[in-house]
Amino acid sequence: MKVSIVGASGYTGIELIRGLLPYENVEIVQLVSRQYEGQKISQVFPHLSKTRFEDLIFDGDVDEGAGDTFFLCLPHEPSVELVKRLIDRGKKVIDLSAAYRIHSTSAYPEYYGFEHSYPDLVGTSAYGLPEIFRERIKKAKLVANPGCYPTATLLAVYPAVKEGVLSEDTITVNALSGISGAGRGLKQQFHYPEAFGNGYAYSTTGHRHTPEMEDVIRRFSGKEVKIRFTPHVIPVSRGMLSTVVFKTSLKREHLIELYRLEYRYEPFIRVRSKPPQIKDVVGSNFCDIYVDYDERTGMGVVISAIDNLGKGASLQALQNFNLMEGIPENRYLLELSSTSILFP
Amino acid sequence: MKVSIVGASGYTGIELIRGLLPYENVEIVQLVSRQYEGQKISQVFPHLSKTRFEDLIFDGDVDEGAGDTFFLCLPHEPSVELVKRLIDRGKKVIDLSAAYRIHSTSAYPEYYGFEHSYPDLVGTSAYGLPEIFRERIKKAKLVANPGCYPTATLLAVYPAVKEGVLSEDTITVNALSGISGAGRGLKQQFHYPEAFGNGYAYSTTGHRHTPEMEDVIRRFSGKEVKIRFTPHVIPVSRGMLSTVVFKTSLKREHLIELYRLEYRYEPFIRVRSKPPQIKDVVGSNFCDIYVDYDERTGMGVVISAIDNLGKGASLQALQNFNLMEGIPENRYLLELSSTSILFP
Amino acid sequence: MKVSIVGASGYTGIELIRGLLPYENVEIVQLVSRQYEGQKISQVFPHLSKTRFEDLIFDGDVDEGAGDTFFLCLPHEPSVELVKRLIDRGKKVIDLSAAYRIHSTSAYPEYYGFEHSYPDLVGTSAYGLPEIFRERIKKAKLVANPGCYPTATLLAVYPAVKEGVLSEDTITVNALSGISGAGRGLKQQFHYPEAFGNGYAYSTTGHRHTPEMEDVIRRFSGKEVKIRFTPHVIPVSRGMLSTVVFKTSLKREHLIELYRLEYRYEPFIRVRSKPPQIKDVVGSNFCDIYVDYDERTGMGVVISAIDNLGKGASLQALQNFNLMEGIPENRYLLELSSTSILFP
Amino acid sequence: MKVSIVGASGYTGIELIRGLLPYENVEIVQLVSRQYEGQKISQVFPHLSKTRFEDLIFDGDVDEGAGDTFFLCLPHEPSVELVKRLIDRGKKVIDLSAAYRIHSTSAYPEYYGFEHSYPDLVGTSAYGLPEIFRERIKKAKLVANPGCYPTATLLAVYPAVKEGVLSEDTITVNALSGISGAGRGLKQQFHYPEAFGNGYAYSTTGHRHTPEMEDVIRRFSGKEVKIRFTPHVIPVSRGMLSTVVFKTSLKREHLIELYRLEYRYEPFIRVRSKPPQIKDVVGSNFCDIYVDYDERTGMGVVISAIDNLGKGASLQALQNFNLMEGIPENRYLLELSSTSILFP
Repeated sequence: MKVSIVGASGYTGIELIRGLLPYENVEIVQLVSRQYEGQKISQVFPHLSKTRFEDLIFDGDVDEGAGDTFFLCLPHEPSVELVKRLIDRGKKVIDLSAAYRIHSTSAYPEYYGFEHSYPDLVGTSAYGLPEIFRERIKKAKLVANPGCYPTATLLAVYPAVKEGVLSEDTITVNALSGISGAGRGLKQQFHYPEAFGNGYAYSTTGHRHTPEMEDVIRRFSGKEVKIRFTPHVIPVSRGMLSTVVFKTSLKREHLIELYRLEYRYEPFIRVRSKPPQIKDVVGSNFCDIYVDYDERTGMGVVISAIDNLGKGASLQALQNFNLMEGIPENRYLLELSSTSILFP
Repeated sequence: MKVSIVGASGYTGIELIRGLLPYENVEIVQLVSRQYEGQKISQVFPHLSKTRFEDLIFDGDVDEGAGDTFFLCLPHEPSVELVKRLIDRGKKVIDLSAAYRIHSTSAYPEYYGFEHSYPDLVGTSAYGLPEIFRERIKKAKLVANPGCYPTATLLAVYPAVKEGVLSEDTITVNALSGISGAGRGLKQQFHYPEAFGNGYAYSTTGHRHTPEMEDVIRRFSGKEVKIRFTPHVIPVSRGMLSTVVFKTSLKREHLIELYRLEYRYEPFIRVRSKPPQIKDVVGSNFCDIYVDYDERTGMGVVISAIDNLGKGASLQALQNFNLMEGIPENRYLLELSSTSILFP
Repeated sequence: MKVSIVGASGYTGIELIRGLLPYENVEIVQLVSRQYEGQKISQVFPHLSKTRFEDLIFDGDVDEGAGDTFFLCLPHEPSVELVKRLIDRGKKVIDLSAAYRIHSTSAYPEYYGFEHSYPDLVGTSAYGLPEIFRERIKKAKLVANPGCYPTATLLAVYPAVKEGVLSEDTITVNALSGISGAGRGLKQQFHYPEAFGNGYAYSTTGHRHTPEMEDVIRRFSGKEVKIRFTPHVIPVSRGMLSTVVFKTSLKREHLIELYRLEYRYEPFIRVRSKPPQIKDVVGSNFCDIYVDYDERTGMGVVISAIDNLGKGASLQALQNFNLMEGIPENRYLLELSSTSILFP
Repeated sequence: MKVSIVGASGYTGIELIRGLLPYENVEIVQLVSRQYEGQKISQVFPHLSKTRFEDLIFDGDVDEGAGDTFFLCLPHEPSVELVKRLIDRGKKVIDLSAAYRIHSTSAYPEYYGFEHSYPDLVGTSAYGLPEIFRERIKKAKLVANPGCYPTATLLAVYPAVKEGVLSEDTITVNALSGISGAGRGLKQQFHYPEAFGNGYAYSTTGHRHTPEMEDVIRRFSGKEVKIRFTPHVIPVSRGMLSTVVFKTSLKREHLIELYRLEYRYEPFIRVRSKPPQIKDVVGSNFCDIYVDYDERTGMGVVISAIDNLGKGASLQALQNFNLMEGIPENRYLLELSSTSILFP
């Protein structure tokens, strides 16, 4: 199998490369990074020296014919066009941008600042959250790989929404993200001395992942649910927590049981008896979930933990790749996930 | 003025000592720490060498007659008795434990595991949050210094609750705390390699600060409000964020205006136009507050930031001390707070 | 192949377990941890849930008959006896303690506080640094797995000492270690709020790894070299740097060439053209080395980076295991090492 | 007293502003920052809201007539010219750049890339290390404020070099610096996810502070000493350690005594009986020093700790300011230093 990675030197690209190391039958035929054009990967990323990828060279431009499957790790707007051209050419695409995630394309101008040129193509994309859309992904040519906040949050609400046990249509979500979620680009607030020991909320209304979450909920449940979403930055490199609160008609035991049943055969979901820690999932494709019920307020409290670059991006992309290629879903990935280390 | 500090070698005690350094008219006549009995403070805490406190010696037992004002930094249960004895002896007490915070003393058995022996004395305590109880504090003999989560959260909800602009009786609170909030005692999860790069929710139902917050709201507003409270640990040493969400009848501009008006003369509250960062308040007695309104859900979103050891504990204790002693409220404290450094 | 891990719940034990995950032909037949006796591994270490080891149970006592190879992750003194009994029983042992590392056993009373009971057995141990003692390790029944500081430092001085290009008999070593190097036991100085943002030197004379380094140098070179060693703690979880300075008769190009030649076929040594970063090796079995020459002082400056739990402990133990078992030296390990992630 | 700060929005400028807060008789008449021209300081640095400086406005250009004393926090080369003009105009200048530190101006082309235009003026500058040059500083019009590495290192070697107890002319120095030492400018290696958990040596030969250290040693001792200097970055925001090793003719007790005597009246030097920690000095103007002697190698081992922005830059600038203005040397500064907090 031959794959191309476009946008290969950003954090999701780097993590994809790491993830592909054990795929002994996969060859990376193209690595595109304008920034590092012409450089050998082990010069730019010395941690890859003496591995099987050490001699790969970054290309500056995309060869749309190279390989069978393309992983795109580009900004949202350039992805719109490139995906279209690749699909037209018969390539399989796993797009890590938001370009093809939201089927209600009217959200793009407000949240992403551009009008979507290919709403029809959006409608054909599979949303790459296997726990919800596994069968569609298997047959897809175009997978829109989910955002990190939506991955953590949707997995935390999916059983409850699907089974209709919410007694209000608003879900309150507070999420914490490691700084790698903001990408590799330099910003003053992510300069080490200023991010060190720091933390804050941001985009307190109108974060781009809000319409994505509501759109996906609509697609799997037919329900109009509103997400009251407050994201926060915390000073870790990788990792994400989503704390979800909703009024529910179920009591504690039934609520917990609902989640255990829903996810019992999932290879990458672990329903836990204690609140999960970022450490438990860093470096892995796991999503750990804890379900609690607050009798005083009649609310369910569900907390999920993922690695924003793992299940929240690149390793989930490989889970989708496995499904699309007929590789056992947890092959290589479980191995990578098992390397989830106790302490980063 | 002569003061005693009991429990002087825990984090709130250490921070009190730092806070008293510029109080040139205050003498520390007693420092009690069983653990360091007989040792000189600069041996135990070398950062205090060559300061005016360097020669203080830790006592092992409390001399209840030493000094006029006692700062107690003890566990909750021992504080119950010691406060009683000190008050009976005519001392002024600022108690940093929860022993005298909750006027509805029925909460103690469930949340703290002991029956309160002096419910009448509890009824006489002033809750040491000057922005709400300033006049009571000025005349108090016993100040129950607030918990860190209640400080951040109550300041974030006070104007809205007082003015009756909530349209539901449940407030959803998600808070993030630095690890010093858990004290100086050793625990596996706070061993550096395990806390490094980590984060998690805990006490997702039933955290002890919940009844404290609800009790105080009842006292200042007469209202029965339920706090849906999820605390989280993040890997910083000091600092706290509280993100508060509630349905409200007010729209954006009025909500913001309400907070600006309420706090306009407060020396230590800064209503901000952007979400506050932990860095903005570390080392200080400031509470920074941001008010936002989410039109889609009709919810107010208020975010407050404090230093859990500053406004959340020891510096607030000094603010109360200033009020009790007739010292200008921000004297010394503003100086200390101005040393809030951009980057810890 | 059946292996036992004794002391399985300390950091080196946990890392060994992670390291064995891809060894599909290796079965862990015994995990000993007094602290967690009777508990399932996935309860204690939830990051191992849904992996092939999730159902392993910790034993409280050692069954000396279980399995063919024993990995010992015990304190030094208990290891002395257990190794003896296991060797007598015909087991292969990879001992991660210092019990059998120093052939000049007279160092034990001074540096470890006990008289060694089995100096003869010490003499038969292979020092588990494959780059120096590969052939001995292949045939060994007992491998004394090196300490982390000695691994980093010896690899940084080996080519120069072996080739006799030092012009003085003292080598000055400054090393930086992540806190996991101090183990999992709780100590005040490793309590998160106190270790956060901190750093310091310790054991500035008389660190235990000094005689180990000098002993090994004597064994491979016949030379009496003195190590002037200052270790430091820095606030990272994993990782180690060793900065080595020595007067040398070689000039820059020859010195660099010497290292490149010596290590050119080593699968886990990467001689680099820039100073290595801790990030480049975290999670891996690599040792990255940079060689510089200071014309002004006539000194060589060599800097090595390892993961103290990887090449500095558990993954090096697996490299030794591979050698002892006739498994290709980099099998599984390179895979694990390739998962060295850019950012922990 | 009226002062100007030029380059006021970099880290040393910000720290100077914090340091000046308690100086009730000092007025900041000019804050220059091209980047923030026209903005109010509390907008850019919200931690300064509700302090006495909150209404200061950044200027874009320097008014050379504003105020009596200028603190310059500029890059080295622009400082050369501005200092000259200010001195010609009769202003007092404390220059935090390296422009006037090195009396042997032939070092500038090699280490700083420019030929110095005013070698005569350099010769008149006082090197702002009060423990060595106190009397000169008191009378100086131009103080060249020392670099952070030289401050820590020179204080660690001064007594030994001055008393002539080194038995070789090379001193080996390994130093660790917090990242704020590299300034506020954005760089990939200081992007939080890449600096987090990282550490490395850099400029392993030829660091700019080498000629500064050797020049100052020459000036106070007349001796030609060579500094073998290896600086390292560690992932803390503030703080610095310098570990100095030299052959010496003195034995342990005499060596320690030498340091104790030399520094016994110094308000900001604390000779300690254990290796100092970064935590002990962060936020302060203290330099903590530990002296040890290694009998095996006949070497003295001296370790010093400072805050690179405190004693290593801005607070030392204020110590110099106090000396120049006849203010008691530790006035305000000790207060600021006492706020050295146990845990950042």
